[in-house]
Amino acid sequence: MTDEKRESWEYIRELTENKDITGLLEYLKTSPASDTSWALANLDEESRNRLIELLTPEKAASILQTITEDQAADVIESINATDAAGILDILPTDAQVDILTEVETKNAEAILSAMPVDSAKKARQIMQYQPDVAGGIMSLEFLAYPENMTVGEVLRDLRSHHETYSDYEVQYAYIISKDGKLKGVLRMRDLILAKTTVRVQQLMVRDPHWVNVDDPLENLVRFFEDHKFIGAPVIDLNHRLVGVIRRARVMESAADRAESSFLHVSGIVGGEEFRYMPLMHRSMRRLSWLSINIVLNIIAASVIAFYQETLAAVIALAVFLPIISDMSGCSGNQAVAVSIRELTLGLVKPSEILKVCFKEAGVGILNGVILGVLLGLVGFLWKGDVYLGIVVAGALAANTVLAVCIGGSVPLILRKLKMDPALASGPIPLNACAARQRTRSLGSFNASIRCDTDA
Amino acid sequence: MTDEKRESWEYIRELTENKDITGLLEYLKTSPASDTSWALANLDEESRNRLIELLTPEKAASILQTITEDQAADVIESINATDAAGILDILPTDAQVDILTEVETKNAEAILSAMPVDSAKKARQIMQYQPDVAGGIMSLEFLAYPENMTVGEVLRDLRSHHETYSDYEVQYAYIISKDGKLKGVLRMRDLILAKTTVRVQQLMVRDPHWVNVDDPLENLVRFFEDHKFIGAPVIDLNHRLVGVIRRARVMESAADRAESSFLHVSGIVGGEEFRYMPLMHRSMRRLSWLSINIVLNIIAASVIAFYQETLAAVIALAVFLPIISDMSGCSGNQAVAVSIRELTLGLVKPSEILKVCFKEAGVGILNGVILGVLLGLVGFLWKGDVYLGIVVAGALAANTVLAVCIGGSVPLILRKLKMDPALASGPIPLNACAARQRTRSLGSFNASIRCDTDA
Repeated sequence: MTDEKRESWEYIRELTENKDITGLLEYLKTSPASDTSWALANLDEESRNRLIELLTPEKAASILQTITEDQAADVIESINATDAAGILDILPTDAQVDILTEVETKNAEAILSAMPVDSAKKARQIMQYQPDVAGGIMSLEFLAYPENMTVGEVLRDLRSHHETYSDYEVQYAYIISKDGKLKGVLRMRDLILAKTTVRVQQLMVRDPHWVNVDDPLENLVRFFEDHKFIGAPVIDLNHRLVGVIRRARVMESAADRAESSFLHVSGIVGGEEFRYMPLMHRSMRRLSWLSINIVLNIIAASVIAFYQETLAAVIALAVFLPIISDMSGCSGNQAVAVSIRELTLGLVKPSEILKVCFKEAGVGILNGVILGVLLGLVGFLWKGDVYLGIVVAGALAANTVLAVCIGGSVPLILRKLKMDPALASGPIPLNACAARQRTRSLGSFNASIRCDTDA
Repeated sequence: MTDEKRESWEYIRELTENKDITGLLEYLKTSPASDTSWALANLDEESRNRLIELLTPEKAASILQTITEDQAADVIESINATDAAGILDILPTDAQVDILTEVETKNAEAILSAMPVDSAKKARQIMQYQPDVAGGIMSLEFLAYPENMTVGEVLRDLRSHHETYSDYEVQYAYIISKDGKLKGVLRMRDLILAKTTVRVQQLMVRDPHWVNVDDPLENLVRFFEDHKFIGAPVIDLNHRLVGVIRRARVMESAADRAESSFLHVSGIVGGEEFRYMPLMHRSMRRLSWLSINIVLNIIAASVIAFYQETLAAVIALAVFLPIISDMSGCSGNQAVAVSIRELTLGLVKPSEILKVCFKEAGVGILNGVILGVLLGLVGFLWKGDVYLGIVVAGALAANTVLAVCIGGSVPLILRKLKMDPALASGPIPLNACAARQRTRSLGSFNASIRCDTDA
């Protein structure tokens, strides 16, 4: 498999560099859609759009699923809304929403209007929820049957809709009351063994586990860690079945979130950055974070400026200043990361600030003293000045203790204020949250709850 | 659900603080295993072990699955090997391996010896692979039938092993040749519709998609992005079926890896850190990273020391030094993060260093000049000295360009050297890799390939 991939990458590169659209088209027809991502990233916009327009909607849709959502949104936005709608309509609703969320509100609205009413309605139903709660990542492709149906009737329905259901991840069917309330779960394999005259009511597992449409991602992760299910029903406040949430989807979202924590902590904010994006766009996004950072840095440095005369008297201090500030920054970051992890895993509660400070102070004193003595020793050996050593050691030790206490607490305080604790790992990115929320407003359409009994 | 949780957390805290083991035991019997993680983290070791020993193995096993693997390994190591083996044996093989990998080699060997021969053999079979390839995260609980069996025979087998299979995630059965080679896939729901006399050979989907036992995690993630399967068969070099890999498991591993990138970039190395761990342990692990950092810092500062006289002449430079070093460090980190992401997604190949440098230089020049001018302006306004402004601006601009080029390239170079690109996001953590690999050696047992036809 690896060998094949290496060959395909050489070949794709050649076709891409030559802008050989016909060749690429031919190649993509017979090959798996794997290295397509690279090709699309390396084609100029015009060639890329020409390529997409020449593909069948089915092939284009399958390509959209192999590339990142940002990239897919780019592609979808640059072709006309009717074509875009035709391609998106082939994807399952959750994939549609993932892409539409990254598209400008205006364009997303145009695409939704061009989609079949039923599909657009489903997409809007998901888009009315935040992307990090059950409602925002649930799937609307599921089976639900009324409780008084018989096994025979269910089997008949399965057979006659074989084509439609083959796209569903069918392992369970949900049993609902007349008013759409969740009553039980029916395992498909139990159908194999049951008599056709039995009512599903008698066969179903009663009081199944469920999640709330508003449950946040971390609760969902914990739910699937507690229970070995592939999926779970999602219910609203009235206990009505509104969707199904899949384990894999939850884990994917958790991976995405962890990725974005990693990017955020590295100063990439406002969404993913790829080098095929326009220079100005990349530069401005990085600057949005760097410019906050430089202001904070200047404020911090103004304290140094205040003690200029001391510095002029003992110039050696100027050599140690950057070390002390960098090292205590590193210690603080460690404390931030541990707090974020512990919050995610439920090992610490936002109210336990004092306990965290106490635990951090221990590490801070130990590490601060060890590093301080080390650095102080360097100072003493260099200048032969005991006082310089003591000052440097003391400064690093004190700074470290302070840094870990602040670093450990800030994520807890942010969580208390109902903000994302990951914000603690860098200056607050002004445009990061805004971008994600951008098109969610689209979904404010108050979708009536549909049970896909006849879907 | 949130309300219930809040109440349970207050109650668990009370029981935990009072070391009320009987109360906790009673509580855990009737409650879902959710907040248990917190309780276990906050009990002293003695009380925790007493609690685990009083639980039924089934309850203990289900608790092990709700807590982190590090924590589970802690628990398992502190009770006797026979009890530990009894508890682990209830878990599926992949969960056993996750925990055993975190346990000291000696203890893991003792636990494996105390486990039933068959279970231990399965665990060792998985443990012979690295944790980030298909073999290391595959599941051995799957159904495989010879190609000449009939639908009736398969249904009979399903009925008679109903109990055993109820733990499997059965949606497909795999069809194999006499020598264990993968021939096809049988969808369970197709069994419902088929005649009992038909041979599975005729019903199966031929030439199914598969992954190689050595395929690394990133290929697996891409595989499941390309294909909408819940699971896929894993084959060895001889095309023999050796296991099944589940989408959710792959996504979980991807999330774990992203988490550890996040921790690593924050300076938490050598495994997860939680505040319930002993102070010395936490302190030493953090120091292992900080001490490399301080040495690098001292080396960098020695350059400043070299220019001490210049610094003494223009003391204002000492104020700008930490800003310039911090800001170019931030720019470099941004470039590192983008390269790591692009490598993960296959958007860049390790050989494209020149292209990356070129793309980074663009952003570096733009951002360097903008930030440089900004900082230079601050210098000029503060001291009224044009030359100071020019020097500061030039230094930041040049430093930024250099930092993004180096930052962008290092992950590619590491990947070329077959190392983890994430290492670029901090000084190399000496003990990080060692810990993960620790117990893998256990699995060197060359397990003969078993097809679980009769499992």
